[in-house]
Amino acid sequence: MRTLIRNAWVLTMDDQMHEYHPGYVLLNEDIIEAVGPEEGPTLLHIQDLIDTADTVIDANDALVVPGFVNTHTHIGMIPFRSLGDDMKDRLRKLLFPLEADMTEDLVRASAQYAMAEMLLAGITTFADMYYFEDAIAEEADQMGIRALLGETIIGQPTPDASDNTPYFGLKMAPAFIERWQGHVRIQPMIAPHAPNTNDRASLESVTKIAIKYNVPVMIHVSEMDYEMAEFKDKYNQTPIEYLDSIGFFEAKVIAAHGIHAKGQDFTILHDQGVGLAHCVVANTKAAKGVAPIKEMLAADVAVGLGTDGPSSGNRLDLFTQMRTFAYAQKTYNHDRSIFPATTIVNLATRGGAKVLSLDHKIGQLTPGYQADITMIERKSLNMNPIFDPYSAIVYSAEASNVEAVWVAGQQLVANKTLTRFSEETISQRLQAQMAPFNAKVAEILGQE
Amino acid sequence: MRTLIRNAWVLTMDDQMHEYHPGYVLLNEDIIEAVGPEEGPTLLHIQDLIDTADTVIDANDALVVPGFVNTHTHIGMIPFRSLGDDMKDRLRKLLFPLEADMTEDLVRASAQYAMAEMLLAGITTFADMYYFEDAIAEEADQMGIRALLGETIIGQPTPDASDNTPYFGLKMAPAFIERWQGHVRIQPMIAPHAPNTNDRASLESVTKIAIKYNVPVMIHVSEMDYEMAEFKDKYNQTPIEYLDSIGFFEAKVIAAHGIHAKGQDFTILHDQGVGLAHCVVANTKAAKGVAPIKEMLAADVAVGLGTDGPSSGNRLDLFTQMRTFAYAQKTYNHDRSIFPATTIVNLATRGGAKVLSLDHKIGQLTPGYQADITMIERKSLNMNPIFDPYSAIVYSAEASNVEAVWVAGQQLVANKTLTRFSEETISQRLQAQMAPFNAKVAEILGQE
Repeated sequence: MRTLIRNAWVLTMDDQMHEYHPGYVLLNEDIIEAVGPEEGPTLLHIQDLIDTADTVIDANDALVVPGFVNTHTHIGMIPFRSLGDDMKDRLRKLLFPLEADMTEDLVRASAQYAMAEMLLAGITTFADMYYFEDAIAEEADQMGIRALLGETIIGQPTPDASDNTPYFGLKMAPAFIERWQGHVRIQPMIAPHAPNTNDRASLESVTKIAIKYNVPVMIHVSEMDYEMAEFKDKYNQTPIEYLDSIGFFEAKVIAAHGIHAKGQDFTILHDQGVGLAHCVVANTKAAKGVAPIKEMLAADVAVGLGTDGPSSGNRLDLFTQMRTFAYAQKTYNHDRSIFPATTIVNLATRGGAKVLSLDHKIGQLTPGYQADITMIERKSLNMNPIFDPYSAIVYSAEASNVEAVWVAGQQLVANKTLTRFSEETISQRLQAQMAPFNAKVAEILGQE
Repeated sequence: MRTLIRNAWVLTMDDQMHEYHPGYVLLNEDIIEAVGPEEGPTLLHIQDLIDTADTVIDANDALVVPGFVNTHTHIGMIPFRSLGDDMKDRLRKLLFPLEADMTEDLVRASAQYAMAEMLLAGITTFADMYYFEDAIAEEADQMGIRALLGETIIGQPTPDASDNTPYFGLKMAPAFIERWQGHVRIQPMIAPHAPNTNDRASLESVTKIAIKYNVPVMIHVSEMDYEMAEFKDKYNQTPIEYLDSIGFFEAKVIAAHGIHAKGQDFTILHDQGVGLAHCVVANTKAAKGVAPIKEMLAADVAVGLGTDGPSSGNRLDLFTQMRTFAYAQKTYNHDRSIFPATTIVNLATRGGAKVLSLDHKIGQLTPGYQADITMIERKSLNMNPIFDPYSAIVYSAEASNVEAVWVAGQQLVANKTLTRFSEETISQRLQAQMAPFNAKVAEILGQE
């Protein structure tokens, strides 16, 4: 089964940043078989490709890019969206009490809803940590999206902890990993919440499991100012220095946030091969700060973009992240030319793939890579004119401009609509599970 | 002709911030006749309103808000979008050379395009300064949108300066004002470019004309760091102190940007009744800085939001401005609770109306006010759940969620589509005028 996407403005994001305009991408099952310009003397004539493809899609000059990679989110948290956005200490006032009562059915409905929203925004791969992650993996399997999934491990009882004790995520990790390892699109992770919410013994166990099974570790690091103060007081170290000192980086680690990284942290992250999942919207909305990405890239740390959960970042699309990244970083560094749009699109595609150690199979449109592809239409007024297609993606586009999406060669979005699921059914499924959650919200807010 | 919008989540933005859910808005010709809840013992029964209205629109629980007010833009600049976004000194390298060759036909096509894009994003009023502003006014008249328009006055020849001398905008101002003053939706302004690009004599002439005709003045102020340095060197004053000292604020002034305002500037702006058009996206994208809005509001200065031109801000919607405002200001002030979503929606509606001195007729859904209304659907996945409708507008929504728009009682957008014009025709009109512009871009970039 070969699908030809033609008459496109193809941004390959390959090593030479090849652009083909007009260009084509040829998919063979789950793989990109060929990419190139439609015109040129030494190339296959486009008519030959048209004649031999099973399906031909006219892109109408749309931008065709590698699917966006969301390096950090919590897709079980759709129920929390627009709740207490501007509230101080929301984590303890709202999030922890409400999470205590989360049910598997609510998390499943939320996960499907969030994956649908991400696909419609052109995200083809995401990395998630939450509770009931085994159920989330089943939903991701059904949805057809690519995912790295890890159960959050934390030093308190979690809603899915059958024994009602802390560190449930650690206990269920081996079985979870064994169930999902080897899946064609789903990769299990192990995901301790943060260095200040896990004790040393649990972090050491995480490392052992990660090494034994060869799975990545995802953890929030250097996100909170009080986290920095705590490690300074206790150990005279940064959280990153502390994690390094206990051998935590012997496993492959994906660090989320890193807002307050400084000094030797950058060298440690680089030398230990730690990738950074940068969530600029969540970080700035919560007034936590602007992460030192210039310093990260100068130290050659792999950096990708993440939406964070819908409670923190609200929007599950990387367009909002890309442009907020530009606004925040240019202002923070007092330089309008720093991080040009090409760099930012790179972070949202190849950068994310590198952070998730998937850069050998996704993040660029190159023969042999997985056919994870996002098509961004140019019919809408906001998308024109285009002098620079990367600028158009970063500064002009929004999620609604995504017209079509393929994951592993399967078309999951066509004409801005899911091909396999109904948005209405997905919405109704979530609504049907929200009543107890809403009642508890009313109760907590009533006590304020 | 009475139109009833019912079954809505109405955010009136009135003095008491009334919310009706479910609620209705009743339009009578260009005026809001009534607003209220659908249920309640002392109110008209909704059935009576349904029976007597000429048209009944079921909002399907959509958010219904006052039309957004874009306090500062340059709608003739669509041709520049995505051109040199990350380039240092783009103004002198690209903008000035290209503007020298702008034609009336290109500006007309650009203006119509930009107004269509703004309407589709729920903007019902905008304030513009550019060249060929008389042609822009004719286009705005046709389009049905509400506008304040002023020809840019600058100490160099402009593309529409028939005599090829500086300050053409000053010479054409009286005739322009006389032509458009009294129009039901279009209000003429007079618009000197900036204090550092106009000499004192021209600024004094502006003030005289503004007072004679009782029209507002729009000017860029305290936008550039070199502008600050120049006034410090020359006069030991800030640009705002300088303008105050020459009597510039005797007219009603709308100041765009004000990024570097400080010290006594806030008191001057307040005491002189100057409104601030704050363009956070353009300011941060160009690394110019984050304007001191906390200080502006503390001094009770009227503040509205603006997109700036599509060359600077790229997107012509206030959703992007609102959320970028939140991210930038919360981070800048190290406080996640500062500027809650209610305040930000207020800036985008009432605040803008106040800045433009239109707060007696637009900016809120109150009986007697103009029927300028934006309806934001809740069917799309990104719009749910909604615990706080203001949060949903600021943090969740995007332009594509705007479903319907009325200006002065005329429905200009329905089902996310323009009711009176074809987007395709508007696009084709612009494209037809772009060829000489594109050729000159290629020439300039080729010389780099």
